[in-house]
Amino acid sequence: MAQMSAAVFNSSLQYRTDYPIPEMKAGWARIAVKQAGICKTDMEIMKGYLGFTGVLGHEFVGIVDQCDHPEWIGRRVVGEINAACGICDFCKRGLGRHCPNRTTLGIDRHDGCMADYCMLPIANLLPVPDDISDDRATLIEPLAAACEILEQMTLTGDERVIVLGDGRLGILCTWALSTVLPEVTLIGRHPEKLAIADWRETRIATTPDGILPDADIVVEATGSGQGIVTAMSLCRPRGTIVLKSTVALQGNVNLSPIVIHELTILGSRCGRFADAITMIKAFPDMPLERLITGRYPLSRVAEAFEQAARKDAIKVLLEIRN
Amino acid sequence: MAQMSAAVFNSSLQYRTDYPIPEMKAGWARIAVKQAGICKTDMEIMKGYLGFTGVLGHEFVGIVDQCDHPEWIGRRVVGEINAACGICDFCKRGLGRHCPNRTTLGIDRHDGCMADYCMLPIANLLPVPDDISDDRATLIEPLAAACEILEQMTLTGDERVIVLGDGRLGILCTWALSTVLPEVTLIGRHPEKLAIADWRETRIATTPDGILPDADIVVEATGSGQGIVTAMSLCRPRGTIVLKSTVALQGNVNLSPIVIHELTILGSRCGRFADAITMIKAFPDMPLERLITGRYPLSRVAEAFEQAARKDAIKVLLEIRN
Repeated sequence: MAQMSAAVFNSSLQYRTDYPIPEMKAGWARIAVKQAGICKTDMEIMKGYLGFTGVLGHEFVGIVDQCDHPEWIGRRVVGEINAACGICDFCKRGLGRHCPNRTTLGIDRHDGCMADYCMLPIANLLPVPDDISDDRATLIEPLAAACEILEQMTLTGDERVIVLGDGRLGILCTWALSTVLPEVTLIGRHPEKLAIADWRETRIATTPDGILPDADIVVEATGSGQGIVTAMSLCRPRGTIVLKSTVALQGNVNLSPIVIHELTILGSRCGRFADAITMIKAFPDMPLERLITGRYPLSRVAEAFEQAARKDAIKVLLEIRN
Repeated sequence: MAQMSAAVFNSSLQYRTDYPIPEMKAGWARIAVKQAGICKTDMEIMKGYLGFTGVLGHEFVGIVDQCDHPEWIGRRVVGEINAACGICDFCKRGLGRHCPNRTTLGIDRHDGCMADYCMLPIANLLPVPDDISDDRATLIEPLAAACEILEQMTLTGDERVIVLGDGRLGILCTWALSTVLPEVTLIGRHPEKLAIADWRETRIATTPDGILPDADIVVEATGSGQGIVTAMSLCRPRGTIVLKSTVALQGNVNLSPIVIHELTILGSRCGRFADAITMIKAFPDMPLERLITGRYPLSRVAEAFEQAARKDAIKVLLEIRN
């Protein structure tokens, strides 16, 4: 059996050169990965999240290498990460991201993209326009997660928004919201990340102290259990807290402000790649490249993860082939 | 100064006969209370909630006794419990229930209705139609809190709803939702309360075990910190959890299902009395009287609170005058 290089998690992270190249399946495409991004979810998986074992990675750009629909071969693509069944109620409503039978690239029973090759259903693929670079394309998946807020909420354009958390997701949410709202404030703890976040009319702050608790929308992207407490303290009555961090609350957390102020808490996860591609084309000056704080060949994946875990890292890429 | 009987909380519950009768204020009405209901909030106040001291009680029916608008004198009324400033942004949007300057009858800097007389702004009063009995009128306040869900959500009429908690609020939410939805399931632990809840097509269950986790809406009215965990387990992806209980979470609670399944958590508190009156008129067979499990004169208020704290109690009334 033909073999390939891959970053494999199986109780520990391993760089292997003898991993089997995936076999073709009808209706699927085999993709030669150009580069892949390291996401916080990958680091969570390495702590045991979802019990995943296999090839890591779900952010990539690549070239279709094999496919039973020959028009796809040779195209540069990104791919939606949930491989849905296509026949359940959620799939029929266009919500394959919530299909109960789905597998998820590099996250749930589906080998990921930190390898020479990965597999996805053809239905998941989106061609990357020529004017979008590989670096920008690799950021389509996280940008889509930020765009999801715009898909879930009907905005009037007058909303005052506060984003909590200056990590990759917080910055991308800030930028995505800045494309439609004039007043977005990003609160984070890291001046160097806040400097990176500066785009359009973004306001930045290093502490919620002194910020009026009258935000219409607070986006919680800190990745910390305390984030929702801060969010409740900044949101106006009948406002909305968008929950982006998948966290467990530790200790006693008083949720009564949700009831007393009739807040809406909106869970928000993956988004549609097409929305992110549209946004990148509409805002060619969105400084996505600033988020890339490290590049490593796949053989140095262990170092890449070490850098990604550092506080000053935003997005670390694995370069797999040119 | 003229004196009256009142149930006063000031570090302990006191029945007093020497409490000053409230003085008239321009634009306000003095109401001779006929009967008052004991609510879970009253019991929370007695544990220190909000630091309230004064006359307890916010559920009542009474007769307007004094008022500078003479057309109100002698009318049987109920009253919205939040005395709003009338001039802030929330008040101007008709959301006086969220006015940051509001006082609240028997809850926040405003003597309540467990007394011979209480005071409310005229704007808060609603005349009670003659065909609504005093008992039913006393339940308008909690029924309005249940109606609030219908005001906050746009329902299609096809939603499958699960209500958690067979206390007074859970039963009233079940009934209010049953007026517009065919499939409402109430899950509670007390067979005798579930029997009381049986009205229209209500389904009842004593455990969530075996109930499909595909509810479009789960109403959390258990009053327990674990309720939201059960609610998350029963709600379909992209469904809504209506949070009615003001609770603090104890220990570690994993909120990641909110993000993974993109749930909406909707805090829901007081409602509009007019909606509850409309509902009572439209559904004269709604068996509100079944909820009344005790009646006491005001002088026996201590006993009344003891009964209200018992697990088999639903709604205990204080009868103040005929």
